[in-house]
Amino acid sequence: MNASLQRIQTPFVVFLGDGVDEIFAKTALGLVQWRGADCVGQIRLPGCRVDTGVPDLDVHAARAAGARSLIVGSATVGGRLPENWVATVCAAAAAGLDIVAGLHVRLEDLPGVADAARRGGSRLLNIRVPPTGLPVGSGRKRSGRRLLTLGTDCACGKKYTALALDRDLRKRGVDSSFRATGQTGIMIAGEGMPLDAVVADFLTGAAEVLSPDADPDHWDVIEGQGALFHPGYLQVTIGLLIGSQPDAFIVCHDPRRTVIEGWENFPLPTPSAVIERAIALGRLTNPQIRCVGIALNTSKVDPAERARLLASYARETGLPCVDPIVTGTDAIVNRLLEEFPQSQRERPQHRRAHE
Amino acid sequence: MNASLQRIQTPFVVFLGDGVDEIFAKTALGLVQWRGADCVGQIRLPGCRVDTGVPDLDVHAARAAGARSLIVGSATVGGRLPENWVATVCAAAAAGLDIVAGLHVRLEDLPGVADAARRGGSRLLNIRVPPTGLPVGSGRKRSGRRLLTLGTDCACGKKYTALALDRDLRKRGVDSSFRATGQTGIMIAGEGMPLDAVVADFLTGAAEVLSPDADPDHWDVIEGQGALFHPGYLQVTIGLLIGSQPDAFIVCHDPRRTVIEGWENFPLPTPSAVIERAIALGRLTNPQIRCVGIALNTSKVDPAERARLLASYARETGLPCVDPIVTGTDAIVNRLLEEFPQSQRERPQHRRAHE
Repeated sequence: MNASLQRIQTPFVVFLGDGVDEIFAKTALGLVQWRGADCVGQIRLPGCRVDTGVPDLDVHAARAAGARSLIVGSATVGGRLPENWVATVCAAAAAGLDIVAGLHVRLEDLPGVADAARRGGSRLLNIRVPPTGLPVGSGRKRSGRRLLTLGTDCACGKKYTALALDRDLRKRGVDSSFRATGQTGIMIAGEGMPLDAVVADFLTGAAEVLSPDADPDHWDVIEGQGALFHPGYLQVTIGLLIGSQPDAFIVCHDPRRTVIEGWENFPLPTPSAVIERAIALGRLTNPQIRCVGIALNTSKVDPAERARLLASYARETGLPCVDPIVTGTDAIVNRLLEEFPQSQRERPQHRRAHE
Repeated sequence: MNASLQRIQTPFVVFLGDGVDEIFAKTALGLVQWRGADCVGQIRLPGCRVDTGVPDLDVHAARAAGARSLIVGSATVGGRLPENWVATVCAAAAAGLDIVAGLHVRLEDLPGVADAARRGGSRLLNIRVPPTGLPVGSGRKRSGRRLLTLGTDCACGKKYTALALDRDLRKRGVDSSFRATGQTGIMIAGEGMPLDAVVADFLTGAAEVLSPDADPDHWDVIEGQGALFHPGYLQVTIGLLIGSQPDAFIVCHDPRRTVIEGWENFPLPTPSAVIERAIALGRLTNPQIRCVGIALNTSKVDPAERARLLASYARETGLPCVDPIVTGTDAIVNRLLEEFPQSQRERPQHRRAHE
């Protein structure tokens, strides 16, 4: 395949500008949470009210601390870069730091940035721009295992759940990669595929490039996008599902919602409806596709209600049901490793005896 | 909505270059077949082996005959324009003809073309470039009626069937518009949406822009793309289905195929499987969606076998089954107008009596 993913050089420094935008703050906080070991600090301009808790630096201190990239979030509505941020970006590029951004404008088109990058020998990574040369999806069966997070809606925990499952699989000694499909996920993973910017014809092919052939025991844990019953975005979800050819999937769900957020005439589907639809569609490229768990977002309910919800969805679906943040993902990881035993591992003898 | 479709000025002249490419020839022949009244002639370079049967002209004769546009097909594999064609394109642009092309390069990027267009006051229409400002799909119910052609595979008659149904509805006095979604269809219709080039997030929205609110009795007959069980392109088909919110659909099918063409590990679905899947998915934005007929491509079978096939698929699906080219679309148009009576028409009294 010709298309390849650009990789973010580590360690990095996060540039917060004077930003107060919530989405931007989430990206920055996610970077510090999931990639803290690779983050040497933050650069803030006067007036900035976001604090990710890492050391405050300027460009030269960041360079001295070993930073190889400056990561700029999608600071503002519309994905533009405020004018008073540009000088810092230029200084970092001129100092040899790669600039990484998910803006709607290309970094090259900001005044002085291309020149500074030439002087500093640094790269400009526009992570909202898909790689060139993406193929049309082939449907060819690839080696290795794949897990995809789906949801009953957008913004209901698909990225967080995938990150947590990837982390927890590694903790168990399983060879696993988080595969990012959105801006924040790509910044956290250091590479990935900006699916929302891929031309429609190449969506399945982009998902295939994102998750290539791998060792038989390796898991790609793929960040889902959109939702299967979403009237605006379902095509993205389905292209990702078919190109990912997942062996297993999780359904993420916010039990407080009753409608698709922002599309109030569309009722939220049940997790069971999503499971049924995902299997019906996903069989095309993986006849063995199955659901291995439900991830609820119960951050806004009290413990008693949480316990009731987890039990209720587990009963309804017959699957392990967790809140990845509150309960952890153990129940789902157990189920996954039970359904897909690692080939290098001896399967426990007592299970053999009972089979 | 901000996005609007560019319209091709008529009459036009077809530029065949010295092209012998089959796809190109099909586009040109389709233009002459479906838009003959708007076609003043063809311009051919020495060595051209394609003849659409309309008068041979040069640029100035075309201008004198009233041509307002020069239509250039996607002449070659890769969608590039041969160097020896560029002079004619420049001459036409300088003479005031709009240039219409579905190339992978933009007309502006060909040497001399932008200058010539400035001198001639002509427009450069790159019909593979979607309009800017496309929205995300809203799922909002629009007024008017919509018919979509689906298929068991790509290249099995979706465009031809839609064109034939649009023509035949008009013959019955029904207000109808053909809505084009691919390059050839857009050239024939004079406007449309190049769905294969739309960014994934905006696919449903693009389908909504293509088929806006209309009079209650008006039919948009929408050219389908891809196929619901196609491992490379199903996301395009599904985005179009959901954004189109069709009241009715047709399944186009080539009964000689057994696998998805070019994806030989994927068996061709039956028309019945496509009907079931289209209804399951399409209900999201139109709960009343239904199939009103099967369009077979029987061009390569003998009359006895054709009759057997038409009867067999009609029996299997309980729907009118036609070959649009050989038998015409009457049976499907009858079914459509029966299921969706025109409100200005009196419904026949004898039907009332039997209800």
